Amino acid sequence: MHFVHESLPQCVRFATGGAPDAVRAEVDRLNARRVMVIAGPAAAALAEKVTSELSPVLRHDEVVMHVPVEVAQRTRAAAAAHRVDAIVAVGGGSTTGLAKAVALTTGVPIVAVPTTYAGSEATAVWGLTEAGRKTTGIDPVVLPRAIVYDATLLRGLPVDLSVASGLNALAHCVDSLWAPSADPINAVFAAEGARALHQGLPLVATAPQGLAGLEIALYGAYLAATAFASAGSGLHHKICHVLGGRFDLPHAQTHATVLPYVLAFNAPNAPDAAERLATAFGSPTALAGLQELRRTLHAPRSLRDLGLREADIPVAVTDVVAIAPPSNPTRVTEQNLTGLLLAAWAGADPTDQAPVIDRPAAG
Amino acid sequence: MHFVHESLPQCVRFATGGAPDAVRAEVDRLNARRVMVIAGPAAAALAEKVTSELSPVLRHDEVVMHVPVEVAQRTRAAAAAHRVDAIVAVGGGSTTGLAKAVALTTGVPIVAVPTTYAGSEATAVWGLTEAGRKTTGIDPVVLPRAIVYDATLLRGLPVDLSVASGLNALAHCVDSLWAPSADPINAVFAAEGARALHQGLPLVATAPQGLAGLEIALYGAYLAATAFASAGSGLHHKICHVLGGRFDLPHAQTHATVLPYVLAFNAPNAPDAAERLATAFGSPTALAGLQELRRTLHAPRSLRDLGLREADIPVAVTDVVAIAPPSNPTRVTEQNLTGLLLAAWAGADPTDQAPVIDRPAAG
Repeated sequence: MHFVHESLPQCVRFATGGAPDAVRAEVDRLNARRVMVIAGPAAAALAEKVTSELSPVLRHDEVVMHVPVEVAQRTRAAAAAHRVDAIVAVGGGSTTGLAKAVALTTGVPIVAVPTTYAGSEATAVWGLTEAGRKTTGIDPVVLPRAIVYDATLLRGLPVDLSVASGLNALAHCVDSLWAPSADPINAVFAAEGARALHQGLPLVATAPQGLAGLEIALYGAYLAATAFASAGSGLHHKICHVLGGRFDLPHAQTHATVLPYVLAFNAPNAPDAAERLATAFGSPTALAGLQELRRTLHAPRSLRDLGLREADIPVAVTDVVAIAPPSNPTRVTEQNLTGLLLAAWAGADPTDQAPVIDRPAAG
Repeated sequence: MHFVHESLPQCVRFATGGAPDAVRAEVDRLNARRVMVIAGPAAAALAEKVTSELSPVLRHDEVVMHVPVEVAQRTRAAAAAHRVDAIVAVGGGSTTGLAKAVALTTGVPIVAVPTTYAGSEATAVWGLTEAGRKTTGIDPVVLPRAIVYDATLLRGLPVDLSVASGLNALAHCVDSLWAPSADPINAVFAAEGARALHQGLPLVATAPQGLAGLEIALYGAYLAATAFASAGSGLHHKICHVLGGRFDLPHAQTHATVLPYVLAFNAPNAPDAAERLATAFGSPTALAGLQELRRTLHAPRSLRDLGLREADIPVAVTDVVAIAPPSNPTRVTEQNLTGLLLAAWAGADPTDQAPVIDRPAAG
């Protein structure tokens, strides 16, 4: 037994219907007096409600996907001008990401109030985009000091976004099980997150206002992000990173589409991960459980539907092979990765990547 | 869904056979130059080996159970005199406890190298004894910055100590499930810890030198301590605290003996906890699984065997009722607690506490 597991300091509150008081409690715990609220225009009403127990010195609503450097700099300048001593970020991954960009250079602590299942709130990963190129890094200072999860805030999320965002969270769990820093402890988080998302997402899809489903799905998304933050990026995330970055495919939908193909690719050589997922899904096999869930959720089915051209696949293969984790359970080659991406492009049966199955990674 | 869960910052290394390098790596990460090694005389040889990659400025071997204040003060004075900037503590709960006493007043960071399943290394709880009276408290500064678990260090532990210490760890898991700050996240740790201890302890009992069993048991003990640190003390720990403090019963053995009686007392009114434990034990019921494990391990069977007198029970009942958690699943009364303790005293069938079963806590 050889591994190193780092637990990060964070206070997590699940407070269904109680975000205003919970946010107030966390701001008080930080002894903060000059709060900046970050929330995009779409989340303005929610943010107003969530911060109703505070008197913020500043409300900032310029939130842009992938956190362009210019936006980060304007936000940092505003924070400095107002001598802000805490940030309350109400929104999805882009909102949390902007708050992290401020924390990165100023050290101002963040209270995150998520409105999707993106999970950025539970990681120390930051990202900035300059001239179309995204830089990411890890710094403990950007990890939000506190998270307030209030399921009522997710009632407005359209079902298709819930499904894509929820399957993106599930991809954190699945990919964590064979990521470079996978260990028995983050595997426990991953398995419990998968169980919760498998239970919660169908409830959210059929009753988007129902709190029981939203709560379980949020809980699962938190565990998913925690597992992912600890285990690192596996093959699935490398593939989606290339597809998103080079071909501009939509983030969450790409994850939702690619996941069963990576699972089919790795499962034969990752029996422990496959068994954990099968148990979490209450299904005979991990893949059967995932596919049944995807059918129930009417998940996106093919990369072709998301706008990828078949002719793009060789480029994607070259890029992914270059960054595929050496520790991936199935050794990645141009040939088997082409099989994987062709199947995902066509929306074929995920097990129909014939050359893969009998090729475990060396060592 | 309403709960607050605090994750504590700590680096955990599982490094079977690799403690010297792992300890060195953690000391380097702290940028420490003046290391104090704390280890009792019985652990001197182990400590020598574990710190072979360091050049400590001080080796301290006065380790006394329950950390008497005088011992703590001498150790603090020695640390100050040598301008110590890190402590490496090699031993069980008393050794870690002494290191915490130094950290409490000096802030010197600790690298803990456990040689039992006590679990103190994963908590921010400190304890000091003055004039026979134990004071405990919680302070983040005493939480070891790093833990190095090396299963080879436990090979010398006598089987009966392993069993008692391991069942003490299992008690952390069980009691966490209904402790005052129990939440879904620490419940996941508790269940996984219970699964691992249930798997590992019989291996340790039959093959005390076998690394597979020692590794799984250590992993379980870490999760147990993490769950307990987060969930707090439940009824079981309150009972054992009174029995240990007032009647001087041996710590781990008392936990090992009392546990099935508290489980039988609470399980009927804590169906979720009972089901988690049954699953963790792979047994039809939680109690059946625990009792079979105890039989396999030849665990201590009665408080009478540990030296408690029947006449002590009314005093114990009065003391426990005064500190029993109001949130305990079964409401605690003098009558049903007397039933519990009489049964544990006699080593009777744990379900033979007739008045208990149908009395859930109010609210």
